[in-house]
Amino acid sequence: MTDSPVPPLRELLAGLPSNWGKWGDNDEVGSLNYLDATQVLAGVGSVRQGKVFTLQTPVGHPHGDPVWPGRRGMERYMVVDEASWLNDDQETPPGGMHWADDMISGYLQGTTQFDALGHVWYDGQIYNGKPAVSTVGGLRFASVAPIAKRGVVGRAVIVDVARHRGRPYLERGETFGLVDVLEAAEAQGVEIRPRDILVVRTGWLESWYNTEAADFYRDFREPGLTFSTELVEWFHRMEIPCLVTDTMGNETTIDPKSGVQLPLHNALMRNLGVAFCEACDLSELAADCDADGQREFLFAAAPLHIREAAGSPVNPVVVK
Amino acid sequence: MTDSPVPPLRELLAGLPSNWGKWGDNDEVGSLNYLDATQVLAGVGSVRQGKVFTLQTPVGHPHGDPVWPGRRGMERYMVVDEASWLNDDQETPPGGMHWADDMISGYLQGTTQFDALGHVWYDGQIYNGKPAVSTVGGLRFASVAPIAKRGVVGRAVIVDVARHRGRPYLERGETFGLVDVLEAAEAQGVEIRPRDILVVRTGWLESWYNTEAADFYRDFREPGLTFSTELVEWFHRMEIPCLVTDTMGNETTIDPKSGVQLPLHNALMRNLGVAFCEACDLSELAADCDADGQREFLFAAAPLHIREAAGSPVNPVVVK
Amino acid sequence: MTDSPVPPLRELLAGLPSNWGKWGDNDEVGSLNYLDATQVLAGVGSVRQGKVFTLQTPVGHPHGDPVWPGRRGMERYMVVDEASWLNDDQETPPGGMHWADDMISGYLQGTTQFDALGHVWYDGQIYNGKPAVSTVGGLRFASVAPIAKRGVVGRAVIVDVARHRGRPYLERGETFGLVDVLEAAEAQGVEIRPRDILVVRTGWLESWYNTEAADFYRDFREPGLTFSTELVEWFHRMEIPCLVTDTMGNETTIDPKSGVQLPLHNALMRNLGVAFCEACDLSELAADCDADGQREFLFAAAPLHIREAAGSPVNPVVVK
Amino acid sequence: MTDSPVPPLRELLAGLPSNWGKWGDNDEVGSLNYLDATQVLAGVGSVRQGKVFTLQTPVGHPHGDPVWPGRRGMERYMVVDEASWLNDDQETPPGGMHWADDMISGYLQGTTQFDALGHVWYDGQIYNGKPAVSTVGGLRFASVAPIAKRGVVGRAVIVDVARHRGRPYLERGETFGLVDVLEAAEAQGVEIRPRDILVVRTGWLESWYNTEAADFYRDFREPGLTFSTELVEWFHRMEIPCLVTDTMGNETTIDPKSGVQLPLHNALMRNLGVAFCEACDLSELAADCDADGQREFLFAAAPLHIREAAGSPVNPVVVK
Repeated sequence: MTDSPVPPLRELLAGLPSNWGKWGDNDEVGSLNYLDATQVLAGVGSVRQGKVFTLQTPVGHPHGDPVWPGRRGMERYMVVDEASWLNDDQETPPGGMHWADDMISGYLQGTTQFDALGHVWYDGQIYNGKPAVSTVGGLRFASVAPIAKRGVVGRAVIVDVARHRGRPYLERGETFGLVDVLEAAEAQGVEIRPRDILVVRTGWLESWYNTEAADFYRDFREPGLTFSTELVEWFHRMEIPCLVTDTMGNETTIDPKSGVQLPLHNALMRNLGVAFCEACDLSELAADCDADGQREFLFAAAPLHIREAAGSPVNPVVVK
Repeated sequence: MTDSPVPPLRELLAGLPSNWGKWGDNDEVGSLNYLDATQVLAGVGSVRQGKVFTLQTPVGHPHGDPVWPGRRGMERYMVVDEASWLNDDQETPPGGMHWADDMISGYLQGTTQFDALGHVWYDGQIYNGKPAVSTVGGLRFASVAPIAKRGVVGRAVIVDVARHRGRPYLERGETFGLVDVLEAAEAQGVEIRPRDILVVRTGWLESWYNTEAADFYRDFREPGLTFSTELVEWFHRMEIPCLVTDTMGNETTIDPKSGVQLPLHNALMRNLGVAFCEACDLSELAADCDADGQREFLFAAAPLHIREAAGSPVNPVVVK
Repeated sequence: MTDSPVPPLRELLAGLPSNWGKWGDNDEVGSLNYLDATQVLAGVGSVRQGKVFTLQTPVGHPHGDPVWPGRRGMERYMVVDEASWLNDDQETPPGGMHWADDMISGYLQGTTQFDALGHVWYDGQIYNGKPAVSTVGGLRFASVAPIAKRGVVGRAVIVDVARHRGRPYLERGETFGLVDVLEAAEAQGVEIRPRDILVVRTGWLESWYNTEAADFYRDFREPGLTFSTELVEWFHRMEIPCLVTDTMGNETTIDPKSGVQLPLHNALMRNLGVAFCEACDLSELAADCDADGQREFLFAAAPLHIREAAGSPVNPVVVK
Repeated sequence: MTDSPVPPLRELLAGLPSNWGKWGDNDEVGSLNYLDATQVLAGVGSVRQGKVFTLQTPVGHPHGDPVWPGRRGMERYMVVDEASWLNDDQETPPGGMHWADDMISGYLQGTTQFDALGHVWYDGQIYNGKPAVSTVGGLRFASVAPIAKRGVVGRAVIVDVARHRGRPYLERGETFGLVDVLEAAEAQGVEIRPRDILVVRTGWLESWYNTEAADFYRDFREPGLTFSTELVEWFHRMEIPCLVTDTMGNETTIDPKSGVQLPLHNALMRNLGVAFCEACDLSELAADCDADGQREFLFAAAPLHIREAAGSPVNPVVVK
């Protein structure tokens, strides 16, 4: 990292493209607008084998689930089970049925999730120019609800940066940029087409299960994509609707050049309206793509539909 | 309802088919096994227009969300928003980004959800013959996790019983059986094929938004499918993998003939391993199917992947 | 209720006394300042028998706990118990100890509780004149924390209005005023001294356990004290530090004369800084006072100490 | 620590006294039975100055609250505040009142709390010989509810071990035994009488606020009392009803001699029925006692009354 002072996002992103207003002042789903019927049919058309994969990192690992520092994992509470009748805590309905019931508590971004376009911002304005105070108590604009309502369905491709570098997972803070993605895609025979959903694998969350949690969080700095003007312009030109990765942040935590935290959240999500699907488990999908060479597929996901939420969990479905 | 004593489920369901052991003693997904690559491709093959629908009943209606009596709706809590900086509660990271973050608490079956196959039982045994005590503290067998892991993807058809009866929604406790479903399907030009995911509309949950909550719950008795041996045998013979409806219980609350509560949960889910996807919002999908006459489609859904859970939320995706 | 338009609180309370500034601009505990060492010793001096009573309405009644409409009761979740070892979910520490552990979720005012002085307001100002926006995200002024820190200890007296009216509990919406309280006190031989903590019994919450919940909430209108200028001036003149009752609101829900909701919260709590301890179970204490005739005692309570909270639970201790 | 194998609690505690059955088979409050009217009056009689202290460690420190490893601190959620009206999320009741409302979620033992007598056990039996399976789903025997109902009121004395050792707080894992407590008491002029509530200060939790959280938990081992047969017999002989400390465990985490975890929980709580009040903030009380030399006082506390709970929060009140 340079010794220069860290520039404000306004300065770092000056002159870069924005989609504010492109789909009207009331648009809340941004680049997902690119996923029209043509793209849906393109996704469906990429299915050849009838294979299904789900991408959510499971909730409830006995040693805890990986979450962004400051959040906590989801907690599941049992409220009815067979013990309820052993203890005379439940009446038995006519016919004699018993049942189990449980509850959940946790961060809406405490597992694989879609960010709302209004999840991050700078300079007092969220996506599409709405004031940041519209987030107080709940996102009255650009919450995750409109994304949940429309769903995210289209043609997707996977680029496996970890495999391209010959390693099971990237290291803490390891970065890659546009050129690396394009080289990996080419080496893996992937054609990234305009309006494709882009899935990028780093292996990072897989490392969670092989690491002492304390070690995972010490000097927390995820590997991932790192900011460049070329990268942002490429997303804009390619009209990428959605970025899907297996890190919690979808980009390296701190841009090593500028020292800015999460610049791509701001350049891509706040300014271009690119939807972020984070913290996926790509291990089985990636292994299968390696085995059969089919790296394009139908991506079909809809996060939980929660009014005014800043994000919400999702278990994306992939069909090859 | 008859004056006879209510029979135990064991007696009501005696002689009816069971799939226990059919896919091995350790199988936890039951009739979803029918959704093989052939069925996935059949689902994909039914897509013609590139239209997308999502089926979750939204969480967070200002007047509360409909839930099964005894449960409560999901609560969303704001924990970070623009006020956090107005109040000096959050430090600003390098570059100046702000963000919003929120949490959720509620019943895993407090919105549109998949039941685990182990969600209900009688006679001390859950699906596939495992002991009911295996549910204590968490479902160590037949939780929703294996369903979440495999996903539910296939060809689906919708049968709109409410429209067939010429009404916006069925009344409290109104029932229908196999013959009604088949008649409605025929009248609507729907061919139900073996291994189809069956979507049935009653309009019931749409009535929630037009009803005082107190009235909705008074003498709570959902309309829906009602038990008959013919119905159970038809599900078995047709190898229906999954039942999807717009009621919380997917069947009428109390079978008016026997007086038994939720017999189909036991006949279909516990014994046959049919997956239940409940509390969907079918209003827009049904209206569109009415308009364009295409009543078969790709159904792609994966509930949240939560270890040992008795059920979990889902926002199913439909592609026509 | 009159047919006149409902006056704003500003107008209803015009000209009534205020304690803003009396203990400095930064005071957050208001009339609890009257509970100085002299009052503490007066409370201690009222103890004669060594009898102890606790006043919290228990949490966890199988049929639910009484709460203010729009709130929900507290939920307890078991997270570790003997089943955790039966299920191999917990490791056993050296020596072989097992344990039980549980969690809670609910409204901070979902059981017997102290209100923060900043819990209610009108005209954009809370107690001591601080701006209402200081409540956003948490009470940065006049939260319950300063009350929790100092505790509420002093001489208290009980006035049993229900018994005075010869009934087990007052009816829905039944009211009483200053004259009624003073008459009941006199009839019961209670001397209310300046700076006494005033405990008033209506029996209302006891009726919860004899009532169908639906009936309790239909046309919800608690009985209780009702507003008059004389009452407010009496609290001011008597320097009453704290009002303790067995209703959720400590006053009738709607003042029948003016139509205003909860005027005493504003006249007494917001303007005078009187602490409100609500939803107590006074049944055993009242019966004992009736039996032995000792109606003054030491009151010792400290709500949970929670930073920025608008209220918090308490299990008050009474010693006679 | 010795190299010998760690003995089971059964063996370590063999031959030590038990109070099972002493107050009947259905007794759930154990040694708190010693706190009869005589003891209550003794407590009241120790009040001389009218000073009040509260002992709860506050909830909601911006950097997190200290909790036992594996638990999490309590979370407060704002649900109504002035922003609710700025955002048109709340209707205004007649008269124009606004209000603030918030919720809590967390471990019942996530702040200062009383343990239920059934909180820990070994050999399949909890306090008073009841079976450990009675804890499943909730403590049907010896929960915290009976302690909450009776309250804990009596004469208490404080012994300040940290000050006696001339240090602000004891070190990680530092231990002391009966002799140390008696020496410190004598040096500080404290007379420990039979049936006194015993308050012991280590300073440990005060160190939390001066320590990086990661450092606090690394090699987590609280300082505190450590097991000896003499200590257990002394508690029995002295009929100590309640032990109050400023550590989360009220004893050192691992007995260095035997290697057993939390033997005093079992010897004192499970076997003798001594109530444990843990994680108190004794800093101000201790400083005051040092200043004025009055080290005995009235202790008045009642944990939250929660049905079947394994423990519950409390903000104890001390009056000197």
